Amino acid sequence: MSAIPEEFLKKTAQVSEAVTRPFANSKKIYVEGSRPDLRVPMREISQAVTLTDNGEGMNPPITVYDTSGPYTDPTVSINLLKGMPEVRSAWIEERDDTELLAGPTSEYGRQRQNDPDLTGLRFEHIRTPRRAKAGKNVSQMHYARQGIITPEMEYVAIRENCRLQELQQDPRYTKLLKQHPGQNWGANIPGEITPEFVRDEIAAGRAIIPANINHPELEPMIIGRNFRVKINTNIGNSAVTSSIEEEVEKMVWSARWGGDTLMDLSTGKNIHETREWILRNAPMPIGTVPIYQALEKVDGKAEELTWEIFKDTLIEQAEQGVDYFTIHAGVLLRYVPLTAERLTGIVSRGGSIMAKWCLAHHKENFLYTHFEEICDIMKAYDVSFSLGDGLRPGCLADANDAAQFGELETLGELTKIAWQHDVQVMIEGPGHVPLQMVKENVDKELEDCFEAPFYTLGPLVTDIAPGYDHITSGIGAANIGWYGTAMLCYVTPKEHLGLPNKQDVRDGIITYKIAAHAADLAKGFPGVQLRDNALSKARFEFRWEDQFNLGFDPEKAREFHD
Amino acid sequence: MSAIPEEFLKKTAQVSEAVTRPFANSKKIYVEGSRPDLRVPMREISQAVTLTDNGEGMNPPITVYDTSGPYTDPTVSINLLKGMPEVRSAWIEERDDTELLAGPTSEYGRQRQNDPDLTGLRFEHIRTPRRAKAGKNVSQMHYARQGIITPEMEYVAIRENCRLQELQQDPRYTKLLKQHPGQNWGANIPGEITPEFVRDEIAAGRAIIPANINHPELEPMIIGRNFRVKINTNIGNSAVTSSIEEEVEKMVWSARWGGDTLMDLSTGKNIHETREWILRNAPMPIGTVPIYQALEKVDGKAEELTWEIFKDTLIEQAEQGVDYFTIHAGVLLRYVPLTAERLTGIVSRGGSIMAKWCLAHHKENFLYTHFEEICDIMKAYDVSFSLGDGLRPGCLADANDAAQFGELETLGELTKIAWQHDVQVMIEGPGHVPLQMVKENVDKELEDCFEAPFYTLGPLVTDIAPGYDHITSGIGAANIGWYGTAMLCYVTPKEHLGLPNKQDVRDGIITYKIAAHAADLAKGFPGVQLRDNALSKARFEFRWEDQFNLGFDPEKAREFHD
Repeated sequence: MSAIPEEFLKKTAQVSEAVTRPFANSKKIYVEGSRPDLRVPMREISQAVTLTDNGEGMNPPITVYDTSGPYTDPTVSINLLKGMPEVRSAWIEERDDTELLAGPTSEYGRQRQNDPDLTGLRFEHIRTPRRAKAGKNVSQMHYARQGIITPEMEYVAIRENCRLQELQQDPRYTKLLKQHPGQNWGANIPGEITPEFVRDEIAAGRAIIPANINHPELEPMIIGRNFRVKINTNIGNSAVTSSIEEEVEKMVWSARWGGDTLMDLSTGKNIHETREWILRNAPMPIGTVPIYQALEKVDGKAEELTWEIFKDTLIEQAEQGVDYFTIHAGVLLRYVPLTAERLTGIVSRGGSIMAKWCLAHHKENFLYTHFEEICDIMKAYDVSFSLGDGLRPGCLADANDAAQFGELETLGELTKIAWQHDVQVMIEGPGHVPLQMVKENVDKELEDCFEAPFYTLGPLVTDIAPGYDHITSGIGAANIGWYGTAMLCYVTPKEHLGLPNKQDVRDGIITYKIAAHAADLAKGFPGVQLRDNALSKARFEFRWEDQFNLGFDPEKAREFHD
Repeated sequence: MSAIPEEFLKKTAQVSEAVTRPFANSKKIYVEGSRPDLRVPMREISQAVTLTDNGEGMNPPITVYDTSGPYTDPTVSINLLKGMPEVRSAWIEERDDTELLAGPTSEYGRQRQNDPDLTGLRFEHIRTPRRAKAGKNVSQMHYARQGIITPEMEYVAIRENCRLQELQQDPRYTKLLKQHPGQNWGANIPGEITPEFVRDEIAAGRAIIPANINHPELEPMIIGRNFRVKINTNIGNSAVTSSIEEEVEKMVWSARWGGDTLMDLSTGKNIHETREWILRNAPMPIGTVPIYQALEKVDGKAEELTWEIFKDTLIEQAEQGVDYFTIHAGVLLRYVPLTAERLTGIVSRGGSIMAKWCLAHHKENFLYTHFEEICDIMKAYDVSFSLGDGLRPGCLADANDAAQFGELETLGELTKIAWQHDVQVMIEGPGHVPLQMVKENVDKELEDCFEAPFYTLGPLVTDIAPGYDHITSGIGAANIGWYGTAMLCYVTPKEHLGLPNKQDVRDGIITYKIAAHAADLAKGFPGVQLRDNALSKARFEFRWEDQFNLGFDPEKAREFHD
């Protein structure tokens, strides 16, 4: 029996104060949608008053996109043992196209559930899994294509707007406009994101809402290039480094600083149980790379992987509530030789596993040959594809080569198949790319993959700064976001060197918030410059506290000033 | 009497070990030019051997550009009291167009020299200043336009090449080429930088070698968009914060991590003496903003500034050896009202001072009206202009506005005048600019200022990350460097919040080395990707030490890995 739940209990099942303490002058607010249970969380930052000549106050509060979940809501009592409040259960039930299962239908899921040795480790309040009724498709894309606007779609529309329309009617705001008419205050911005626009983008495949029906705790968010650029963070234990408790804390820490989605890349023992704890407490979509766990099930021997083991893993994770799966189905047998003359071969872990399997069996990648069966699983739970770039370049020298772009074309072919099943898709991208070659990646992705959202790792624009790869990649990320990438996978300063600690995670996230915001500004997303303008005005007027509070990291700014 | 020299003496006039300790597996080498006293320093990083199938070793050493000066040469005995070795004295004397003066010719310089209270503070070995003989022009541009290739020009040509041509004949290198034929190893790169090309670029005004005849300790470097992108760092004491000793140590620290030039922005007491200590020990060009010191001379009252006080300050600093002056001659009276509706008005300190003076006197900026007289001083010592952008935007909202671009046009007009005097010019640029508006800055600068080298501060691409402005600006810097900016002025994490400590300086420099290198790669500068390729290969082969040593900050990488 593990000691972990007892540890949780000792701490009243709390995460530490450092990850939940409120930001100064910030208030958690909820914007209600068309139904009372549709409440979209935001953070309102209030500002001090600047007196004008006629004695009137100025400086409206600024509402910002809030990824921190219930952890920063003082009215919610946090109990990690019970999990977070359910946001979406009623919406899912009302659609009446799913059914509760008696229990896990995956072999491995049943095995773990029935293993008495795991009692002390297991999340106590596991929900019975839910699945689409026979013949039903429960993906957001399926609804969108039928013309249905789901509560999830309305939720993300409200979330993207961040009350810009309300602010535009605030007299303090219109006064500012008059005073500084030339500046980009978003005054003439027509771009209100409507639920109908969201539906349209999802139906077209240009955006996804990763939202597994078994993850009702999720606060829905959207990934697509006509929306705010998002960032993904990675966590994951390994056999030696961290406990479940630490992983949950890292997840909340990620949410605090602005992580929009989170991938659990755990490779150690008890992956299944760790994932359950994370999912039940996670307000953001959770992604995984199922091949990692499948590999553990065959003791790390890639050649012993089978479609059956992999399929069981997909079902196991889908029934836990994983929102998107990285699937390396584009690593085709014929592409592998294209990597032979590369400087750094294949660096993607999933890519290496599949290449090894292909070569060992002299057969085509089983993820490719069974792709339609995978789609059938995805649509029964609404798991989104994150089609993995297993042949991504591992250094500048290998960027944009035949192996990488060959795989990208195959990902496009698979996208079409997934869309025939109304399954949501995003496409993973590199990696290591010099600045002048970044744009070609987006252009090709949009063409080859029919505008499916692009989700890139950086890219790093130089290889000679180990210890600073959050920055080498943040430069690439800002650019690729501007060119049209929808989500940026963060990189921490420890990349290539070691496992990130909390400080590294924070540095990585803030760097990527900067990159994503720079991209939003460059693309002219409605209203995003308001926060820059407000902070700049505060700076000019020596309102130090407002300057700190309006920034991405008020704690760091305050510490540097003191 | 100040205690500072005694402090130096106690430490045997040494900087601390932390700023001079050798990097592992690195060797200081010198490449000799056409004369024995023309020895260009470089750093050679050796690598471990990778055994190939036939048992032969691989991995040639990598030669990198070295800004660290004599401080990392174990054969040079460092004595800050005596100053660094003179690199250029013979070259300057041989030209026979200068004369030694009896002493400082500026009133203030004489006053400081004769003040007995300063004995304990004054650098002991002050050299008698040198000035062009009557009617002579000693600028590198003047020589270039006469068809003369100076030793300084040959020096920078050798320096820019970093032994690429030699490496290309190394059999270990050609073996690598055969093994990885598709990669950018620089094999077919024709772009050897020749002294003749340097001369050409300087004659055309597209590049400058800031090299005051009174700074013979200088290791010459070139700033121009057809050369490696350079970075500038800033130091400077203020009345309350640091001693001369600390400033010298910061200068050496800056050189260690890769600062190509350094601006001394001191505003406290004893500016004159601090500058002397820095110059006598500085291997890199030193820049100043003379109006800062002029303002101290009128007790901070901008309206009391006069041309005479300013002129005396220019001569004072030129005779000490300052290599480039920031001169805010483009802040014209008619531009000041254009800043009225800005969100953050005028944020440049020099810009504010001149705007205040113009408004107080209802007169045109005296730097503008006396510009030709300034040119006469510049060419008598070969001080380069860094034409200041006093109206640069202080926030995204004010970027690329009429005030900024109006001033830029005036800087172009002044460039033409300076060039009529064969005085070298670079142009300062912003500041705060959203990503999509960055390129316009370079395009306009190249057009309005006739391709004079552009020297920008970042720019920051968002205003909402105080505490991380090395990163917000590093993103802008990489892009603007790619588009054609020749030198990037660094920003530290403390920007807007406080004075940087040594760690902040290091973070700022490495971030800017990354930006400059990303720009060099993007522009395809000959051979720069070799170091990336070498590090990537080391990474792929798990040669950890080589990976650390080939990076910008081996110490940090090693620490993160341990």
